[in-house]
Amino acid sequence: MTIKAGILGATGYAGVELCRLLLRHPGVELAAVGSVSFEGKKLYEVYPNLRELCGLECENTDAVIAAADVVFAALPHGLSQETAAVCAALGKKFIDLGADFRLDDGEEYQKWYGCEAVHPELHQRAVYGLPELFREEIKNTDMIGNPGCYPTSVALGLAPALRAGVVETKGLVVDAKSGTTGAGRKPAQNTHFPDCNEAFSAYKVASHRHTPEIEQTLSKVAGEKASVTFVPHLLPVNRGILSTIYARLKPGFGLDRVRGLYEEAYKDEYFVRLLPDGSPVNIRDVRCSNFCDIQLYVDEHGGGDDGLLIVTAVIDNMVKGAAGQAIQNMNLLFGLTETAGLDMIPPAF
Amino acid sequence: MTIKAGILGATGYAGVELCRLLLRHPGVELAAVGSVSFEGKKLYEVYPNLRELCGLECENTDAVIAAADVVFAALPHGLSQETAAVCAALGKKFIDLGADFRLDDGEEYQKWYGCEAVHPELHQRAVYGLPELFREEIKNTDMIGNPGCYPTSVALGLAPALRAGVVETKGLVVDAKSGTTGAGRKPAQNTHFPDCNEAFSAYKVASHRHTPEIEQTLSKVAGEKASVTFVPHLLPVNRGILSTIYARLKPGFGLDRVRGLYEEAYKDEYFVRLLPDGSPVNIRDVRCSNFCDIQLYVDEHGGGDDGLLIVTAVIDNMVKGAAGQAIQNMNLLFGLTETAGLDMIPPAF
Amino acid sequence: MTIKAGILGATGYAGVELCRLLLRHPGVELAAVGSVSFEGKKLYEVYPNLRELCGLECENTDAVIAAADVVFAALPHGLSQETAAVCAALGKKFIDLGADFRLDDGEEYQKWYGCEAVHPELHQRAVYGLPELFREEIKNTDMIGNPGCYPTSVALGLAPALRAGVVETKGLVVDAKSGTTGAGRKPAQNTHFPDCNEAFSAYKVASHRHTPEIEQTLSKVAGEKASVTFVPHLLPVNRGILSTIYARLKPGFGLDRVRGLYEEAYKDEYFVRLLPDGSPVNIRDVRCSNFCDIQLYVDEHGGGDDGLLIVTAVIDNMVKGAAGQAIQNMNLLFGLTETAGLDMIPPAF
Amino acid sequence: MTIKAGILGATGYAGVELCRLLLRHPGVELAAVGSVSFEGKKLYEVYPNLRELCGLECENTDAVIAAADVVFAALPHGLSQETAAVCAALGKKFIDLGADFRLDDGEEYQKWYGCEAVHPELHQRAVYGLPELFREEIKNTDMIGNPGCYPTSVALGLAPALRAGVVETKGLVVDAKSGTTGAGRKPAQNTHFPDCNEAFSAYKVASHRHTPEIEQTLSKVAGEKASVTFVPHLLPVNRGILSTIYARLKPGFGLDRVRGLYEEAYKDEYFVRLLPDGSPVNIRDVRCSNFCDIQLYVDEHGGGDDGLLIVTAVIDNMVKGAAGQAIQNMNLLFGLTETAGLDMIPPAF
Repeated sequence: MTIKAGILGATGYAGVELCRLLLRHPGVELAAVGSVSFEGKKLYEVYPNLRELCGLECENTDAVIAAADVVFAALPHGLSQETAAVCAALGKKFIDLGADFRLDDGEEYQKWYGCEAVHPELHQRAVYGLPELFREEIKNTDMIGNPGCYPTSVALGLAPALRAGVVETKGLVVDAKSGTTGAGRKPAQNTHFPDCNEAFSAYKVASHRHTPEIEQTLSKVAGEKASVTFVPHLLPVNRGILSTIYARLKPGFGLDRVRGLYEEAYKDEYFVRLLPDGSPVNIRDVRCSNFCDIQLYVDEHGGGDDGLLIVTAVIDNMVKGAAGQAIQNMNLLFGLTETAGLDMIPPAF
Repeated sequence: MTIKAGILGATGYAGVELCRLLLRHPGVELAAVGSVSFEGKKLYEVYPNLRELCGLECENTDAVIAAADVVFAALPHGLSQETAAVCAALGKKFIDLGADFRLDDGEEYQKWYGCEAVHPELHQRAVYGLPELFREEIKNTDMIGNPGCYPTSVALGLAPALRAGVVETKGLVVDAKSGTTGAGRKPAQNTHFPDCNEAFSAYKVASHRHTPEIEQTLSKVAGEKASVTFVPHLLPVNRGILSTIYARLKPGFGLDRVRGLYEEAYKDEYFVRLLPDGSPVNIRDVRCSNFCDIQLYVDEHGGGDDGLLIVTAVIDNMVKGAAGQAIQNMNLLFGLTETAGLDMIPPAF
Repeated sequence: MTIKAGILGATGYAGVELCRLLLRHPGVELAAVGSVSFEGKKLYEVYPNLRELCGLECENTDAVIAAADVVFAALPHGLSQETAAVCAALGKKFIDLGADFRLDDGEEYQKWYGCEAVHPELHQRAVYGLPELFREEIKNTDMIGNPGCYPTSVALGLAPALRAGVVETKGLVVDAKSGTTGAGRKPAQNTHFPDCNEAFSAYKVASHRHTPEIEQTLSKVAGEKASVTFVPHLLPVNRGILSTIYARLKPGFGLDRVRGLYEEAYKDEYFVRLLPDGSPVNIRDVRCSNFCDIQLYVDEHGGGDDGLLIVTAVIDNMVKGAAGQAIQNMNLLFGLTETAGLDMIPPAF
Repeated sequence: MTIKAGILGATGYAGVELCRLLLRHPGVELAAVGSVSFEGKKLYEVYPNLRELCGLECENTDAVIAAADVVFAALPHGLSQETAAVCAALGKKFIDLGADFRLDDGEEYQKWYGCEAVHPELHQRAVYGLPELFREEIKNTDMIGNPGCYPTSVALGLAPALRAGVVETKGLVVDAKSGTTGAGRKPAQNTHFPDCNEAFSAYKVASHRHTPEIEQTLSKVAGEKASVTFVPHLLPVNRGILSTIYARLKPGFGLDRVRGLYEEAYKDEYFVRLLPDGSPVNIRDVRCSNFCDIQLYVDEHGGGDDGLLIVTAVIDNMVKGAAGQAIQNMNLLFGLTETAGLDMIPPAF
């Protein structure tokens, strides 16, 4: 059986990355692509890299839904809810790459995104699609809130330590750095080449919308309320996120113990590579792949009485941080091999 | 049947790109990798992107040859000849990514590379592996001189015009720009990041070793001696070559006629995309793929009495300019589908 | 005496580069800056690099003109003519960094820019401000058409050869590469970081508006109509232009003779550095400076019966290609030392 | 009076940046440059940007010292001590851009750099040259240990808060990101363009040699032992450091109070720009200048019971982080205006 996939928002960066991956997925036919801005245009007219590789024309939302067994929505927040409802009514699986179905708490959603949860029952039904943490729930739903890019790197980077209770849940600091594709396809001053190249800055310091999503996941994993200071920075590269995470170790825990926890947690996870001592993670090494590479350090010195755990985690923000993870979720929803279509080898350069 | 492939020089850039592609080739097993500098080390210790994706250890030349049905040599020039002889004696197919088997004329080889052709009969036997131009010869040999990166872009960019005799074979100008991977993995001052970034220069102006190779192919295609002024430049990007080629049109030929020739020449070539009028080629659009994108222009204005044909051709220097083309040749040598293992979709960013 | 300078279009890239240079010019007071888009805002609110270094607020055109002895206009084409007329009426010197006063021929201006020359007498009066070629005329006017960035590099690169008649005036080929600041401050898709980074393409092939300007200057210098094929490319760097220029040598002329002509032509020109044999030019080496570096080559081989002269010329497109040259012109208009305010040393990195 | 300056290690990145700045310093003559690797070569042969701007030839150490009133040493650590002794004996002022005279504690020096303090009395005499914090001591010495690049950004970023005692001195976290010039001129694998471009990683996590220097300065300012976890990252840009600093506020202090302390501390400091609320710092805005831009944030949310102070501080690592600060120190040593030769305006792009 071949799964028919449709993509809404296919001309955005996450959307076109989905196209690229789904076009080579062994169990999927890319059946339809949607775009409000480019309806009626061939996708390759917007993305000439796809010339002769995808003849699809951008269609409207209804046409995409009609053609698909599973609908991926890579839309600005607030626009997925109605589509989700339509898909639910039609019995089609729905994977939202936006933020509409990530937060459990409607008030938080309202506060950070300024949108109302118009179909509360759908929010109930939607599962947060981070397979390494919530695989079983994912397998048993048909509606996914695909995690944000930053939150993916942070959750994978901290989960084993928080789950085992070896670090404090308060005072967590995430200093994250993202490539420019995270800002989307639309030209803006801060991503204008001469302004962005040879530049580096922090933005939305301690006020980024991914903060509640990060805290929600970490709290779930820890079993108690976690609080995070989240400071993102804009890196002058195309792809990649590196999150440097600082967490206070509880007394009695050292690097060996922590490393053991991570090894155990990820030993069967294809997409998480815990690097051996001495090998730093680099966004370069996960480019165009669905991997999350993790390295651990403990600073005995700087962390007060006890040590400070330092986790560095890298992902490709457009793959494990968006399109790749969405496909991983799709594979779970349909009972396919979880790595199907996702066995890309990151290029060395 | 699975073909067993071995790579010599696997820790160079072309070598590791071959690894990346062969590891996902449906008809190939990457059986062994060789490296003089890193013998005894795991390949992933040199290229951490390969961690958990390739467990091979770098071996010596003999071990690689012994393990393989086909040997790829990505070595500095001069070092492939003995290996070729060994492979020939053992009945193993041999694909040389270096320059040792590209030039038919031993004197030219001596003049430009300072090496002697020690096994003239092998040079006779070796076929210049540009499938779009010499497919039949390739199918009937077991020894390939894989083309240089610049020459590939120029030959594909000019062949239809030269073969049809619509441009002069004298006074051809190739203004080419290459990404930095073309300079190899070894650190040097001109590829040191602060020296190379935000920089741009021409190098080896009218004296680059690819000149005789370019002229050899163009002359073959034209059926008469072609002469080329070749000026390469170093681009501050990782991958890609764009060649801007200037050729004087013979009287009576215009853009429509020329475009028709190219359409005809490449209509069945999967890896050559002749873009429609108005779509410029961009190295971005062929990244990590085996495509060569071509666009044509005629300047009536500047070319003297007759027009000037301007061809822009782009390839990924490490794929169609090296590892990808080598695999395309391997596919032909073994009677596989020519595109096997090479159907990568270039990422949009 | 301190000259009071005003800048119209101060928030564009050429405008703000003028500000940077004029703020440190020993004989100038930057008296007023104008901006349509940012009127009423402090300049440093738009360009935070200027914080605490320039307290000027963006004003309207009239206010800028009123405050200034010399008005620099860094405006989109078509918008400078009325301002020029006002300045002329008020006896103020006027330097236009746009294209309105560069072309002598009103029809060419109309054809390439779609604008009419509304004050033909001003066009007569305006002098093309390339000091190395037209210094005396510049000294005797009060209205300057400041050259385009590409044309500056080409004119300086070819003038000595054309003036001496050692190269053909037909069939000249200019393969030029420019940094992204040449496209201006306004965000656009092709200068959006993820689209532009790791990318390279030709644009407006044989149809760029600088073509008639290039031909006008070269024809003047040669004393006969010169024809040029001009192909610009977009480089993923902030600053710099490298023009690679191809010209057929007339019989009997070789590299030594040509080099002698260039040495003679530029021996007293502070801003032109003819590099010694073996030293390639690099956009890096002229960054943030008013220099034009030139290197010469002759290809005996590729140029048909006679040799092909290859000139490589680099400038900083925003300095010698715009703001710096405008100040050099201002210095001449006011009888200042020509290098005043322009003795910046290009940084090594 | 013109001061005669000599530079040892002039062909390194910090050395050549010193040359660039000193060549335009109104009170200085660059009298001699030294280089072990390039002795006998003109400086412009190594750095072609300097062609026709500096005719100096690289000399040996003795010759440089003999020619100079003040000697700048931009040498690998361990090599400055003997030179310092010679200068002291000859009554010449000495400014060390390396690490030999930064640490007060010889054991720490031994531990982190593996060198012994062979002239303890010189270490006593040397003053840590961070003028904004230790101006009076600097004025009264003739031997300077010029601060490291990272430590400069951290000390300026935290001093007002630590001095006033509003933050905890334990558990300080510095997440710093540096451009590649910080790694020096010598080519290496991690700064090879294809390895470094589009890449990002942390290095020497909690083990970088600047850690004791940072702690020494912060402890002095705080009046008690400060402990810091320092995590540097390599940014794919040429110039610039951004340090993101996390410090726990003591109860009762909020952003307004902290901002007031910084305003007071830096109100007369030309080279420190405290940006107004809402304006993020960017390495772009201090490029090629001696400025340190600072922005402050408080996260009430993430810092446990009390708030977390987040300081972002940017400098040009080669100017305020090396050559510019050395000149600032020289100005103080000689009683010149502190900003002499350092009033460069950072370019906008």
